[in-house]
Amino acid sequence: MSLSSKKLFPLKGNQVWTKETLKKIVDDFYAWYERHQPSAKQDKTGLLPSDSLREVDQLVSDLSDRLGKESIPWASQNYIAHMNTDIPLVASLTYFMTMLYNPNNVTPEVSPVTTALERELSIDFCNLLGYNPASGWAHLSSGGHASNYEAMWIARNLKSVPYAILQNEQTSMLIADKDQLVNMPVPKILALLDQVAKMGLYTEIIELAGLLRHDSVLKNGKVLLSENCHYAWDKCLDLLGIQKNNVEKIAPDKYLRTDNQELYKRITWLIEQNIPVIAVVLFVGSSGEGSVDNLSAMFHFRDLCQKKYGQSFYIHVDAAYGGYFRSVILDDQHEVMPYEKLKLEQPAAYLLKPEVYNSLRDLPQADSITIDPHKSGYVPYPGGCVAYKDRRLNSIIATQSKYFGQHPDEELNFGPYTLEGARPGAVASAVWSVNRLLPLNSGGLGMLLKDSLKTTLAFTQIIKENQSFLVDDHLFHVLNLYEPDLTINNFLVVPAKKGTSFEEADALNKLLAEELKSGNKDYINLFFSGSQVNYQTFKKVFKDSDLQSDHENTRLKLFRSCLMKDIPTASIKGQWNHFLGSLTDIIRNQNQI
Amino acid sequence: MSLSSKKLFPLKGNQVWTKETLKKIVDDFYAWYERHQPSAKQDKTGLLPSDSLREVDQLVSDLSDRLGKESIPWASQNYIAHMNTDIPLVASLTYFMTMLYNPNNVTPEVSPVTTALERELSIDFCNLLGYNPASGWAHLSSGGHASNYEAMWIARNLKSVPYAILQNEQTSMLIADKDQLVNMPVPKILALLDQVAKMGLYTEIIELAGLLRHDSVLKNGKVLLSENCHYAWDKCLDLLGIQKNNVEKIAPDKYLRTDNQELYKRITWLIEQNIPVIAVVLFVGSSGEGSVDNLSAMFHFRDLCQKKYGQSFYIHVDAAYGGYFRSVILDDQHEVMPYEKLKLEQPAAYLLKPEVYNSLRDLPQADSITIDPHKSGYVPYPGGCVAYKDRRLNSIIATQSKYFGQHPDEELNFGPYTLEGARPGAVASAVWSVNRLLPLNSGGLGMLLKDSLKTTLAFTQIIKENQSFLVDDHLFHVLNLYEPDLTINNFLVVPAKKGTSFEEADALNKLLAEELKSGNKDYINLFFSGSQVNYQTFKKVFKDSDLQSDHENTRLKLFRSCLMKDIPTASIKGQWNHFLGSLTDIIRNQNQI
Repeated sequence: MSLSSKKLFPLKGNQVWTKETLKKIVDDFYAWYERHQPSAKQDKTGLLPSDSLREVDQLVSDLSDRLGKESIPWASQNYIAHMNTDIPLVASLTYFMTMLYNPNNVTPEVSPVTTALERELSIDFCNLLGYNPASGWAHLSSGGHASNYEAMWIARNLKSVPYAILQNEQTSMLIADKDQLVNMPVPKILALLDQVAKMGLYTEIIELAGLLRHDSVLKNGKVLLSENCHYAWDKCLDLLGIQKNNVEKIAPDKYLRTDNQELYKRITWLIEQNIPVIAVVLFVGSSGEGSVDNLSAMFHFRDLCQKKYGQSFYIHVDAAYGGYFRSVILDDQHEVMPYEKLKLEQPAAYLLKPEVYNSLRDLPQADSITIDPHKSGYVPYPGGCVAYKDRRLNSIIATQSKYFGQHPDEELNFGPYTLEGARPGAVASAVWSVNRLLPLNSGGLGMLLKDSLKTTLAFTQIIKENQSFLVDDHLFHVLNLYEPDLTINNFLVVPAKKGTSFEEADALNKLLAEELKSGNKDYINLFFSGSQVNYQTFKKVFKDSDLQSDHENTRLKLFRSCLMKDIPTASIKGQWNHFLGSLTDIIRNQNQI
Repeated sequence: MSLSSKKLFPLKGNQVWTKETLKKIVDDFYAWYERHQPSAKQDKTGLLPSDSLREVDQLVSDLSDRLGKESIPWASQNYIAHMNTDIPLVASLTYFMTMLYNPNNVTPEVSPVTTALERELSIDFCNLLGYNPASGWAHLSSGGHASNYEAMWIARNLKSVPYAILQNEQTSMLIADKDQLVNMPVPKILALLDQVAKMGLYTEIIELAGLLRHDSVLKNGKVLLSENCHYAWDKCLDLLGIQKNNVEKIAPDKYLRTDNQELYKRITWLIEQNIPVIAVVLFVGSSGEGSVDNLSAMFHFRDLCQKKYGQSFYIHVDAAYGGYFRSVILDDQHEVMPYEKLKLEQPAAYLLKPEVYNSLRDLPQADSITIDPHKSGYVPYPGGCVAYKDRRLNSIIATQSKYFGQHPDEELNFGPYTLEGARPGAVASAVWSVNRLLPLNSGGLGMLLKDSLKTTLAFTQIIKENQSFLVDDHLFHVLNLYEPDLTINNFLVVPAKKGTSFEEADALNKLLAEELKSGNKDYINLFFSGSQVNYQTFKKVFKDSDLQSDHENTRLKLFRSCLMKDIPTASIKGQWNHFLGSLTDIIRNQNQI
């Protein structure tokens, strides 16, 4: 972290400044308030707190005490359990300031300033993700769930549009190639809708597409995604009426990424059988492992499908946690820097594996992308965002036909285009101000993420170099499940003793986690959260491991750490040794030798 | 507004106090931060702002300026355009304070304090809405959209459960009465699921219900709701795959409420034809008109259906804006006060029409209720909430079987039960602190709402008494579309001249609104937002009106005002006269005589 960006976070040296800034914010707000409500000025009673203010005082100070005592200590350099970054003061200050004026970005009528900021954010995020800001669009949401829901809603609705166009007598002639109906390329569907809109038949076609959806798409269509996906994805698909028979979950490969070979095989089969591929969902930074799917190869495969079969499919990328890492490879003109240049000039960015670099570079080929400012974007909750390659996609879910081909970044309301309605303008202010001070490129916010990448590499090295420990005469190992693609690490403890079963190893790791939790609350809070791996995946990673099981889907408890900050190597090393010491004590005291 | 609750809002007299409170909040936070990151203490450079802080200073003060100049002036006593209440300082302060610690209520692991507060809020909202806190459940959301999505998702999923139970060989014997399958009462489905869960077949049945959903429910099942619903409802139904053929929209009655007679007729027909009623959606405070549906009669009708046919249906109430008005009729033990008692002891609460009182009283018979703290609950965005009569309902969408019959208010995570994932703990703090200081009853937050009811009555009276104005020799009238049920008023301007058509009146009102907007920006911001009424409804309200049209669905532009505050009658009167003056000028200048 550079000295100047360090100053954006709480330090003794800026404590006074923070209070002075809040004073100005409050004075400005009171001046505004009095201008609009002159009677407020006259009430000067209670320059000393009145009874009711005393009651508020008590409530505020009690809650402040409680938060100080019981909150998770994410500010600690030693805290690496959950996905928490430090928050720049400016984000909290502008959030608070804007909240006082309480704008709602559902429509500019009640949020003239913050809707304008959100329009600037659309450009920021298009630039970050490689979309053309003139034809793409990004908007804020409450978080990854809402973003994924919205994108998948669009993907689902789009899928039956060609059937509707074919069925309607007036528009059927627009479909030249009926063989393409089932898996029509997204840009082609949008072009057809442009024509339909010009004919004044947009609403009719969209409604008909709804009526035809089940028989044409949902009866046997498929969404393909990794079985390692967050449970949020099960909610998303169920919400949209995409049931178990519509979902093909793909086992991860040995890097904990979606297995592309398996995807190619299944998609080819689906296309050849004329079965609709509703969408393929890929991950840039899976929630559990932080793994980055090999997007480049997948986009290439999609191009081949289009060439060979004239068919294609929607690709959504859930980059809620990982999308911001694209900033690491961008120069200050939002251009991707060549990998070799990173090697020479950006050693920290060069820490990215070449295939991860490629995926980040090629991200803009996705039709839509979920990215969470409240994960790697250094803003407090609630900050989500969803971006679309083609802004016409949002019109698919807008309820009024007049919106097609238009877009909400000019004078129209955001509300009819988005899954959500009321959205706090304060979030726009927080994200906007962070983006202004820490631009979404290698020299801005990317600096902070490079620090996290360095920390992760150091942590992984330390585990590798100090992975064995003795409890009395018995040897135990700590194994990294994989080399992190980004900044999440999963590891497990196994006895060196031959003949240990997979289930026994699971029991040991569960016991260790439980004891670390109950014996020393600090550990669960500071050092790890929980994760799991099934036997099938485990054997892909450690094909020579002694640990055996008869059940492919039996699972093993893992320790998961999120390294979202700059931690000196010596400090991590100290923590690690302390952690191994605790493990040793537990194993001995619990007779696990 | 009582003197003591007035002190909770910005006044000259508490400006110093607000700043002092923020100082304490900041000092507490810095102390916490330094405790966890001792290095922060050492960096004392920059007791004067560094360059980077100067940059932040500039950004913050520019944004503060901009917000002060361009924000909508909701603090003004004259502002009655949109649904904006004043915000008590404690809500903004505790929101800010909590945001500094940045908890996420997706799981208590990252939000120990604010998840505990949200559990208390569940009790608050159950008490407000009349649910039993021990068997009901309420949780926060990002707003009314998310709340409605979640409740309707549950209603939809629940509907095909009986089919799955019947189809599974092991559970089919649980269904004694096959005639009840199509429209089985909600409590009965839940009781069946309890038995299924005991048999260890919960997941299996829920998945099967998903597969059977289309053919059993979505092929011809219906959701019934008012055609006056907010466009959010079109989004909701489409998201859930409930298409146009599944939706029966009911024209409003002459009070702008859902027409119960029409509902009875259609539901009876559906039940007799053995067609699934997926859900009936009713409104307590429609977004456009603030009208309160006659719930009591509807609940009574549902009871009759159960008696006569053994069939029933899910009722969801969208009380996003109106739900808080139940506080007006509650004593401090959360008991509903008899209407006659209100007359004697609570003249302001007695302003509620008897049928509105009855609807609020009987609200707890709904299966689920949407209520927005950021609408009538005096907290900033984003504050939504959804409440369930039976907490088992949320398990229907939880992805893991183990959750059935359990509930997230003890030690479990909220995440798997809710539509949303990451949810800011700061919202819980804001809502919780407002509820503590202004309890959700007649003597607490209800006081503020009674003030709004009084203001609305005064406004309606003023329009009635000053509804005609002359432009030169030509007479014009301003008509209230209805007597407000809560605090929203819709009105229109019509020339007294005989032979004016409905379409001409629409054109006049559009022109007036446009001119008021462009000529004097204050008016659109301060006095009204827009609304519409179709000819069919208009004729129900004004059956003797001269305005005629040949098209039932042609619409007339309305002026809509939201009276969410305590405004002295003299002040409203002044505003009204000024408004009429502006109308006069425009009509004259635009040659609309």
